[in-house]
Amino acid sequence: MRATMIHGPGDIRLETRPDPQIRHDTDAIVQVVRSCVCGSDLWPYRGVRGTDEPRPIGHEFIGTVVERGAAVTALRDGDFVIAPFTFSDGDCAACRRGLTTSCARGGVWGTPCAEGGFHDGGQGDYVRVPLAGATLARLPQQPEVGMYRDLLALSDVMGTGHHAALSAKVGPGDTVVVVGDGAVGQCAVAAAARLGAERIVMMSRRNDRQTLARRMGATDVVSERGADGIAAALEVLGGPADAALECVGTEESFDQCLGVLRPGGRLGYVGVPATSPTLPLDRLFGQNISVAGGMAPVRPYIDELLPDVLTGKLFPGLVFDRAVPLTEVDRAYSMMDQRKSIKTMLTH
Amino acid sequence: MRATMIHGPGDIRLETRPDPQIRHDTDAIVQVVRSCVCGSDLWPYRGVRGTDEPRPIGHEFIGTVVERGAAVTALRDGDFVIAPFTFSDGDCAACRRGLTTSCARGGVWGTPCAEGGFHDGGQGDYVRVPLAGATLARLPQQPEVGMYRDLLALSDVMGTGHHAALSAKVGPGDTVVVVGDGAVGQCAVAAAARLGAERIVMMSRRNDRQTLARRMGATDVVSERGADGIAAALEVLGGPADAALECVGTEESFDQCLGVLRPGGRLGYVGVPATSPTLPLDRLFGQNISVAGGMAPVRPYIDELLPDVLTGKLFPGLVFDRAVPLTEVDRAYSMMDQRKSIKTMLTH
Repeated sequence: MRATMIHGPGDIRLETRPDPQIRHDTDAIVQVVRSCVCGSDLWPYRGVRGTDEPRPIGHEFIGTVVERGAAVTALRDGDFVIAPFTFSDGDCAACRRGLTTSCARGGVWGTPCAEGGFHDGGQGDYVRVPLAGATLARLPQQPEVGMYRDLLALSDVMGTGHHAALSAKVGPGDTVVVVGDGAVGQCAVAAAARLGAERIVMMSRRNDRQTLARRMGATDVVSERGADGIAAALEVLGGPADAALECVGTEESFDQCLGVLRPGGRLGYVGVPATSPTLPLDRLFGQNISVAGGMAPVRPYIDELLPDVLTGKLFPGLVFDRAVPLTEVDRAYSMMDQRKSIKTMLTH
Repeated sequence: MRATMIHGPGDIRLETRPDPQIRHDTDAIVQVVRSCVCGSDLWPYRGVRGTDEPRPIGHEFIGTVVERGAAVTALRDGDFVIAPFTFSDGDCAACRRGLTTSCARGGVWGTPCAEGGFHDGGQGDYVRVPLAGATLARLPQQPEVGMYRDLLALSDVMGTGHHAALSAKVGPGDTVVVVGDGAVGQCAVAAAARLGAERIVMMSRRNDRQTLARRMGATDVVSERGADGIAAALEVLGGPADAALECVGTEESFDQCLGVLRPGGRLGYVGVPATSPTLPLDRLFGQNISVAGGMAPVRPYIDELLPDVLTGKLFPGLVFDRAVPLTEVDRAYSMMDQRKSIKTMLTH
């Protein structure tokens, strides 16, 4: 099969890999219909995170079940499924609490595999899915092609934005500031709107992203950054915010969030902290700022969000502003790297 | 009147200051019956925090209303009152949310005063209490002397321990680790027990503090520190904890807390971060650790906790292992500084 491999910074190749085989009776094989490039895929692409050896990449995909192990009773061949960006057993202590990203037996696509080699990545023709019955979210019927982009967004970015909003306890009437105008930040806007926030300020300097944020539900946009951005957000809201959603993962973005929060304000964070940022406790202490978030347990969120997608209430697929064939996956990376695309979908 | 002043590191003096006068019609004058020395009073005493000029010190006291401004209608002369460690108007946006420590018009005893000079400290004969009607918690009747210590603990440490437990969302059946065996940590144990925690581990190396922790409700004690302490706590609990309560304020104590928490665990922190500790976001991210707490809004907590004290269900006054007359206030500081006392009460 064809599979996208990362060899090092800037070095993305579509290569031929052996077709995946069922290894455990809890595995299933999924034929990928759509996948995409994530902001976090850009960390190794930019060399911010190292790549020790060539490995499969991509952790967001939707597709069709084509083969199953004997123990996979929850799925049938031909089922249309959404894969969350981690696999999980659904049964350990963490999963029972809904924290599937901390599953005792779980893992991430494209990482080393206990049996040797690597788990398949999502940006390829097929994926062997471990613990498939618990991992894959099955659609009640075959979706229309026009809905693929919205379903694909449930694989990571929409659930991750939702996690930011939930972690910050966004609720009806709240004022919310979103830091990060990438796909996750855009989805955080949609999540805050869905949870009833009254005012949602997106911090963004780029026209296309400002426009998208308004489509996702932002009531206001602030284009300044740093201290000016904080001042502008406070002015727009007439005071500090109830919640701030951190969707970047840098110390600067956390600083923006802390700057706009009221006493007792809630910071929800989902930006991957690739550069080891720290939080200054003395800034939190006096104002009783709370901080929650992390790697989003997307699997249960698919169940929560899918009905809104299927009934046309939520359109997270709006984050995809480009689509290219899998054969041009290297171009998808470079477009996102150069910010020519917010998020690029790959057609298989 | 007599009032305790700090002049610099190790330099505590009981001096004569003018008797306080009503300055605003929302003021009241309280004659102090009992006060005490706080762990945070030791920061300037040890020189960890500077003392630019001599100032009154002490922020925990109980006593009797002896004079009132015309607007103080909620109190009468002779009322027995508990003063929280900050004053607050009870009416601003923060106070209405219960966050009295972020009151728009509030402040702290012994700090510079808008009218010039300093607010009175609690370790003296009298205190002018601003915004007295909202600040002071009035007892329904005169308490017995034997109850003074429990009431005095509501001024700060019990409410602060309660804030740690509430911030960490401690509830029935939870496993909890408390880091910090001072008065606040001991009260955090009592708060966790009161909220229904099933297992409460106190991290403490000292016999007297271990004994006190068990009286406050700890089910287990771990005397190791650092990595050994983390390993011992995990062994005692048979796994990581649901919640950790940080009651010190150093990077080491936060590290202990992070080390014992399960994925999705909750860190409640109330230790004053005097040394500007930071939190490593990449340690929080993967495990979805949430962090909440800060300067405890003690005023509403007095209303919440007082009934349990008055009905003999809660004995936070157990933290006072020494009592000395106000004339020996310098000895009270040195006993606490040298850890000869967990918390010392001053009799007036």
